Amino acid sequence: MSADQPVTVEVGLGDRAYDILIGSGLLSRAGTEISRRLPGTRAAVITDANVAAAHLDALKDGLEKSDIQPAVITLPPGEKTKSFAHLEEVVDGVLAARLERGDIVIAFGGGVIGDLAGFAAGIVRRGMNFVQIPTSLLAQVDSSVGGKTGINSARGKNLVGVFHQPKLVLADTEVLDTLPIREFRAGYAELAKYGLIDRPAFFAWLEENWARVFAGGPERAQAIAEACRAKADVVARDEFETGDRALLNLGHTFGHALEAATQYGGTRLVHGEGVAIGMALAHRFSSRLNLASPDDAARVEAHLRAVGLPWRMADIPGDLPDAEALLSFIAQDKKVSRGALTFILTRGIGQAFIAKDVPASEVLSFLKESHPGEQESRPGQQKSRPSQQKSRPR
Amino acid sequence: MSADQPVTVEVGLGDRAYDILIGSGLLSRAGTEISRRLPGTRAAVITDANVAAAHLDALKDGLEKSDIQPAVITLPPGEKTKSFAHLEEVVDGVLAARLERGDIVIAFGGGVIGDLAGFAAGIVRRGMNFVQIPTSLLAQVDSSVGGKTGINSARGKNLVGVFHQPKLVLADTEVLDTLPIREFRAGYAELAKYGLIDRPAFFAWLEENWARVFAGGPERAQAIAEACRAKADVVARDEFETGDRALLNLGHTFGHALEAATQYGGTRLVHGEGVAIGMALAHRFSSRLNLASPDDAARVEAHLRAVGLPWRMADIPGDLPDAEALLSFIAQDKKVSRGALTFILTRGIGQAFIAKDVPASEVLSFLKESHPGEQESRPGQQKSRPSQQKSRPR
Ligand SMILES: NC(=O)c1ccc[n+]([C@@H]2O[C@H](COP(=O)([O-])OP(=O)(O)OC[C@H]3O[C@@H](n4cnc5c(N)ncnc54)[C@H](O)[C@@H]3O)[C@@H](O)[C@H]2O)c1
Ligand SMILES: NC(=O)c1ccc[n+]([C@@H]2O[C@H](COP(=O)([O-])OP(=O)(O)OC[C@H]3O[C@@H](n4cnc5c(N)ncnc54)[C@H](O)[C@@H]3O)[C@@H](O)[C@H]2O)c1
Ligand SMILES: [Zn+2]
Ligand SMILES: [Zn+2]
Repeated sequence: MSADQPVTVEVGLGDRAYDILIGSGLLSRAGTEISRRLPGTRAAVITDANVAAAHLDALKDGLEKSDIQPAVITLPPGEKTKSFAHLEEVVDGVLAARLERGDIVIAFGGGVIGDLAGFAAGIVRRGMNFVQIPTSLLAQVDSSVGGKTGINSARGKNLVGVFHQPKLVLADTEVLDTLPIREFRAGYAELAKYGLIDRPAFFAWLEENWARVFAGGPERAQAIAEACRAKADVVARDEFETGDRALLNLGHTFGHALEAATQYGGTRLVHGEGVAIGMALAHRFSSRLNLASPDDAARVEAHLRAVGLPWRMADIPGDLPDAEALLSFIAQDKKVSRGALTFILTRGIGQAFIAKDVPASEVLSFLKESHPGEQESRPGQQKSRPSQQKSRPR
Repeated sequence: MSADQPVTVEVGLGDRAYDILIGSGLLSRAGTEISRRLPGTRAAVITDANVAAAHLDALKDGLEKSDIQPAVITLPPGEKTKSFAHLEEVVDGVLAARLERGDIVIAFGGGVIGDLAGFAAGIVRRGMNFVQIPTSLLAQVDSSVGGKTGINSARGKNLVGVFHQPKLVLADTEVLDTLPIREFRAGYAELAKYGLIDRPAFFAWLEENWARVFAGGPERAQAIAEACRAKADVVARDEFETGDRALLNLGHTFGHALEAATQYGGTRLVHGEGVAIGMALAHRFSSRLNLASPDDAARVEAHLRAVGLPWRMADIPGDLPDAEALLSFIAQDKKVSRGALTFILTRGIGQAFIAKDVPASEVLSFLKESHPGEQESRPGQQKSRPSQQKSRPR
């Protein structure tokens, strides 16, 4: 892939269809790409301090070429920014800039900024134009596509938000060069997820090519484009998550519980790491339920371990709440429907499915098996090796 | 209209169509009507202290008959409740009650509660079921129908919100008996608005029958049903206000400026009163612009005066900011499109239309003419009579 030839993936949503452009050098073309689609509009850029320090000037230059002088709202980095208080701050800032319904809110950052800015764009004047310029791998392959926006509540992650589709997504792969490796790995978990859901060939390709993806070769943009195609497919089929879209939650039910259990700290566990462990657990749980072969679970675990991702609860530094407490985090999760537990389970790599009415008792005993603090008392289970337990390389 | 025969008006929005039921005794049938449409769901009732004191027990009894034991969130009455802080409170309360996507948020109150609770229902879990049980006349004829929800910002009214349609609207006309007369009059302004927009025969009917509407005879429910039909028509034609729906803003551009100028105090001016003055001003302004006969403006003013509504700026107790300041409130209003002023003007009673590019200079000189503090210096203008200026009967 050359610097001037981005790949385009279309999200087919009828009169709300939009393009995802993937490639390098897109920041410098942001003004051109935006004003081609939304001529004559003004803009506010929502970003975080890390992204602003590394890339805001480049984005401003790119917008300037098309005479867009944006208002800029810079927020603290981190999951805690997805709060009511920061939502109000962004809403106020956009209104203070006197932007109108047809003007643009630009989310320039990772998934935190994308979710927060997208929510603000969805509610200011009951819906403004919205452009995603995702800067983390996770945001490029997942959160910037599909129109889910939102913030966290004290009662759980992403419990408050709206569906609000962007008009354009610009994924400049060059900006990933400044992303901390830990964040790159976390995003890689979501990338691999598409292989695990329904693209076994993509998962096999990643097993071969992951080192080149990490090294920033052309495989990086290829992998991102494939992930965007996968996500765009699901979103076009089920925009409002009344069915299939829930497959994207593979790994997320366990993952969210672990994030909640670590207070969304970020130092102990970032979202993609929770998803990595969650995916490994979902595969292992499926094998315990005799739905899938244990070999597939082992393959998933091995790949996550190879790329340096955590893959089991024991990889989380510090103590975890016990299995009962983890289950109660799961039961608070929004994927609980009428009291029954809904999980994404699998029949093997690339064969994920939505399982309703998973008995809480099965989940609990599996959590007990998998819990580093409860394993010792259960003979016959694989023990975590203490030497690796708290020293995962970052 | 008898107690057991409500009128049904359908809001024709395809797969999101819903019924408005209008009649007396509907609180006691709330459980039946809701569970017929949304069987087996749980609910949270959002209300304000005034409405709760007068009618909450009756609603709970009505819900109880269908085994619905709602969580109840009671907020302080008044426009200031439409804030981020109270939005967060409602969202938290609904989540604390562990309601799921398919459960119901019930707005039980006036337009303030309807707008706030509807917004919360639109964002908790990215959209929950929502039922409106409007208790003010304004809410029964206007705010409960059509799915506009939202809160105020320091920068203006209703600047933040979503479109989120209810599944059902229950307008129990009996609850209006406890509504303070001042609030009834304010709601009457919105009722009369439909006549002024495009139903001249309805306006003429109101000129004849308004006293029976105020007295609570069968004409009251008839008038409410006619208003709901008018609103449902407009909403079905233009759900997201990209065109015609803006006609419903007749009187609102001036009205919102006056509300902002009086700090949404409620004691000096409530929403419907602002609309009443705004409608009179819109008619008078249209006549000044030679669009409509001054006789029509006079007829509107006379009717508003007859029912005891304020109809000119001089009717607002206390001092107002000057005309320039009022204009700046208008220019901040969300109906400003790309810097030009958009107004709802009229060619006569029942002939309102959307006027784009109204010159700010025309608005300013009209505001100066109409302003009680600036009138003296302009010979030839009708002067406000000081004896009536601050002593409108409530
Ligand atoms: N809306 C959706 O569909 C969806 C899907 C998946 C995840 N999410 C959400 O996404 C969030 C996680 O996203 P994330 O992992 O991007 O988190 P993030 O936004 O916090 O970004 C991770 C860290 O990387 C930094 N960063 C981002 N881009 C950078 C760059 N180019 N150079 C240097 N630093 C950079 C950020 O400042 C931050 O510190 C979670 O809140 C999750 O709920 C949403
Ligand atoms: N969403 C829309 O389409 C739309 C349309 C018009 C107005 N609105 C909004 O509606 C709001 C105004 O509505 P409102 O006039 O109903 O205000 P409100 O909700 O404040 O009610 C007015 C007063 O009457 C009291 N009250 C309500 N019902 C009562 C009853 N049956 N008995 C005794 N007291 C009762 C309330 O407690 C309050 O004090 C404004 O915020 C306006 O922006 C929205
Ligand atoms: Zn995720
Ligand atoms: Zn109104």
